[in-house]
Amino acid sequence: MIRTRSGRLIVIGGHEDKEDERVILRAVANEARNGALVVVTAASDLPHEVWADYEPIFRDLGVEDVRQLHVDSREQALDETVHGVLDGATCVFFTGGDQLKLTSQLGDTPVFQKTRAIYESGGCVAGTSAGASVVCETMMVSGGSSASPRVGDALRMAPGFGFVSGVIIDQHFAERGRIGRLIGAVAQNPRILGIGVDENTALICEHGVSCTVLGEGAVYFVDARDVTQSNVVDDSTDRTLSVFNIRLHLLNMGDEFDLQTRVPACHSTEQAEAKAGIS
Amino acid sequence: MIRTRSGRLIVIGGHEDKEDERVILRAVANEARNGALVVVTAASDLPHEVWADYEPIFRDLGVEDVRQLHVDSREQALDETVHGVLDGATCVFFTGGDQLKLTSQLGDTPVFQKTRAIYESGGCVAGTSAGASVVCETMMVSGGSSASPRVGDALRMAPGFGFVSGVIIDQHFAERGRIGRLIGAVAQNPRILGIGVDENTALICEHGVSCTVLGEGAVYFVDARDVTQSNVVDDSTDRTLSVFNIRLHLLNMGDEFDLQTRVPACHSTEQAEAKAGIS
Repeated sequence: MIRTRSGRLIVIGGHEDKEDERVILRAVANEARNGALVVVTAASDLPHEVWADYEPIFRDLGVEDVRQLHVDSREQALDETVHGVLDGATCVFFTGGDQLKLTSQLGDTPVFQKTRAIYESGGCVAGTSAGASVVCETMMVSGGSSASPRVGDALRMAPGFGFVSGVIIDQHFAERGRIGRLIGAVAQNPRILGIGVDENTALICEHGVSCTVLGEGAVYFVDARDVTQSNVVDDSTDRTLSVFNIRLHLLNMGDEFDLQTRVPACHSTEQAEAKAGIS
Repeated sequence: MIRTRSGRLIVIGGHEDKEDERVILRAVANEARNGALVVVTAASDLPHEVWADYEPIFRDLGVEDVRQLHVDSREQALDETVHGVLDGATCVFFTGGDQLKLTSQLGDTPVFQKTRAIYESGGCVAGTSAGASVVCETMMVSGGSSASPRVGDALRMAPGFGFVSGVIIDQHFAERGRIGRLIGAVAQNPRILGIGVDENTALICEHGVSCTVLGEGAVYFVDARDVTQSNVVDDSTDRTLSVFNIRLHLLNMGDEFDLQTRVPACHSTEQAEAKAGIS
């Protein structure tokens, strides 16, 4: 089920704290101890503003070599002066925006290949909001938030970067009422575990298996393995979803989750911070 | 677990269709075949507007004897000219507003006692939004919607009318992102089953046991019996909730749920409509 046993993923539900303790961004910054931190703003329509937000924060958190990588087209992603920015990086951080801009412009380009090489050699890939969704094999693109989940085409998925397999990640989870669409996604194939990350909350995933929650909110794990009945193949795509026997885990700061066994474990905040290298 | 084996409850998640097929209000109207339908507007700050909304609909749906009952104080609920409105009713419908207005003004008054008598003699109690929450033994009053659920005092509950025991009902469920607060409620006592009803959706409950979903959206059943770990007794009430092994069922129109066994069953829309007496 798990493809890689590589580095570390830091998957953030959006709106991470940028002013106070900055626990999550501190964990990201910590991944650039021995190399550069590259902030990829390609998901955003406002890359300059996004870069102006993050650069001073990461510098303030002690990152000496922080760089921006932005493209507005796939062509740019093939340009060596662009993907050369990744040379020497140990952490690649994808900001928010539109996950389809990330995959359509970067998918299979040298930007993607170098990012994957960094991750597979033990480096870190981090992402917030759209940048969180994109790390999965199959990613969530859109679907009814704060609405009764429907069978069929209201829910849109697409191939992601595939840094972790066997899961689908949704962000802004509690804030945008997304439990329904995540259930809809995993009911389409219970092989996939659904992960919903609240704002200002991150899931840190080691070697594609061992996960720890960091930050203020909760992370939801939606396991459809035991589902006995669902209507996802219903002809009427406007029909409301019906799914019986979902297993749901709600984890907070310090709690752990094993993606291979799908079993949660309870640990302290201090252990979580130590694990993230920020205590 | 189940107190009564009485009449029928129609628990509506708010914003039920008032213009098109009016499937849910048709089911309510159908309960006044052999008696009056009393619309209780006491939860609302705009009782005249609410009554002006519902009266023509129920008349249009064939209810000959439709009456309003409104109080602005507990004293009024003791007045015979007020509670006399319930004499001869077979269905009492509570509109939306503030559930604490319902319980504080009507609790244990003749209005409540007559409503209970109607229900216990086989009649119907229906409610939408606040009127849905109030039918439980312990009712949800407030708590963070669309936010990471917290341990402790963010979640407010109060004693309800108690027409059905063993459950707690939340409304506007998907629309207001309320899964977190419902998990928070049931984790405080897994004896209680959590029920979340989407807008324009109803749960019809026969004899306090056998439930059927009617309407456009979904009904969520949150069963915490198998929960292995939770932090609801954590000293820090601002701490995010952590709960492992929740069982969740998502039901749509026609699906059934047995409150005694906590087991869902799948049925057709047509069966649901027939059961509601509106096919």
